[in-house]
Amino acid sequence: MRNFIILGHRAVTTPQFSLNDLPGSGGRMDLITRAINVAFCISHDIRRDTEVAAVLLGPEDPPKTIRFIGSLLKYLNPDERSTGALIRNALVKMYAEKMKKSDYKIKLKPEHDKNFKMFAGEIRSSPGIYISNNGLEEVLAFYLEKGPIIHLDEQGKDIEHNFPSQACTFILSDDKNFSEEEERLLKHIEAPSISLGPISLHTDHCISLIHNYLDRKEEN
Amino acid sequence: MRNFIILGHRAVTTPQFSLNDLPGSGGRMDLITRAINVAFCISHDIRRDTEVAAVLLGPEDPPKTIRFIGSLLKYLNPDERSTGALIRNALVKMYAEKMKKSDYKIKLKPEHDKNFKMFAGEIRSSPGIYISNNGLEEVLAFYLEKGPIIHLDEQGKDIEHNFPSQACTFILSDDKNFSEEEERLLKHIEAPSISLGPISLHTDHCISLIHNYLDRKEEN
Repeated sequence: MRNFIILGHRAVTTPQFSLNDLPGSGGRMDLITRAINVAFCISHDIRRDTEVAAVLLGPEDPPKTIRFIGSLLKYLNPDERSTGALIRNALVKMYAEKMKKSDYKIKLKPEHDKNFKMFAGEIRSSPGIYISNNGLEEVLAFYLEKGPIIHLDEQGKDIEHNFPSQACTFILSDDKNFSEEEERLLKHIEAPSISLGPISLHTDHCISLIHNYLDRKEEN
Repeated sequence: MRNFIILGHRAVTTPQFSLNDLPGSGGRMDLITRAINVAFCISHDIRRDTEVAAVLLGPEDPPKTIRFIGSLLKYLNPDERSTGALIRNALVKMYAEKMKKSDYKIKLKPEHDKNFKMFAGEIRSSPGIYISNNGLEEVLAFYLEKGPIIHLDEQGKDIEHNFPSQACTFILSDDKNFSEEEERLLKHIEAPSISLGPISLHTDHCISLIHNYLDRKEEN
């Protein structure tokens, strides 16, 4: 399994944003959509061994965590706008739930991955996409049960000789650095810091590099 | 220098496409915009040592080549939609030029890179962005003058031990394979085939990997 936790510090947490302006009205939601697309999309297929938890921390109702489960995921296209629509759809469902205006039934039909485990208070938005009111602390605790969490950081040790063999979860921030509180949480769980190279890269480019690193490693 | 030639087999060559539907109306223009964004965008900066030539081969007026020159480039944001607008803008200028309805002056003020060389019939669309009616054959000849061209291909030799030291131009296709005619052109210029790993990846992910490979190499 390859899990990615992506922090969106300004990414909005209610569905009132425009798909025509993901960077502005979405609070850099474009960056979150690219990270999701890179995590899952390969040529004519989806990586089924991957999960992404996007932790949205922007206005007006933070936090929201949207999880994308590769083994169950449907309707994901590689472009930003369609992934933005999947995120907005999840936020709409959560908002409707909250407002108790939910005149549709939240579908909870069993999914076809027997290893899939739901998160506290999570509701299903569309196949393979789940939303909850959990924040970073809960998400870290959830993924820590699956194995160690690695903190991607320019100041970390080089990936080449410092990659823990049983690693399965990577945490990345958006264009903002981790806050002091977030750094404290990462320190508390003793997440090792790993660097991917000499140049500071965008979140989605880092995910490409981690996947390739693991692909090559698994091949040998 | 790092140059990338990206082939868009269906990417439209007139400006009548919607920024709200880059995959459909643009002929997978989303893929071209992502490749451009990954080629240039690093954290809070642009790679000034990079050039991209996007060769558009879709309807209605192929071919069109739009070149993005890192050393001169302005107004590039990392999201798909804004890059789609830069491409559409270039196609509008070329279309106006063609229709002889050009009631504006094509700006040809000198740019600030003394090494910058213009291409036959190229017009400037916006800072660092140039458009011409050239096709793949002309683009290959132009970049061949700068050094060898490497063909990214799943069937090629592994990048790890087969990376020519003086390489400067990489050619990648979109979601379609190279056509027979394109393969013939690549064979004619003796472009070596290089593979990036065991899994067939999207064009933009390949560009991330090449940049990281070169970044790490240059650091050592």
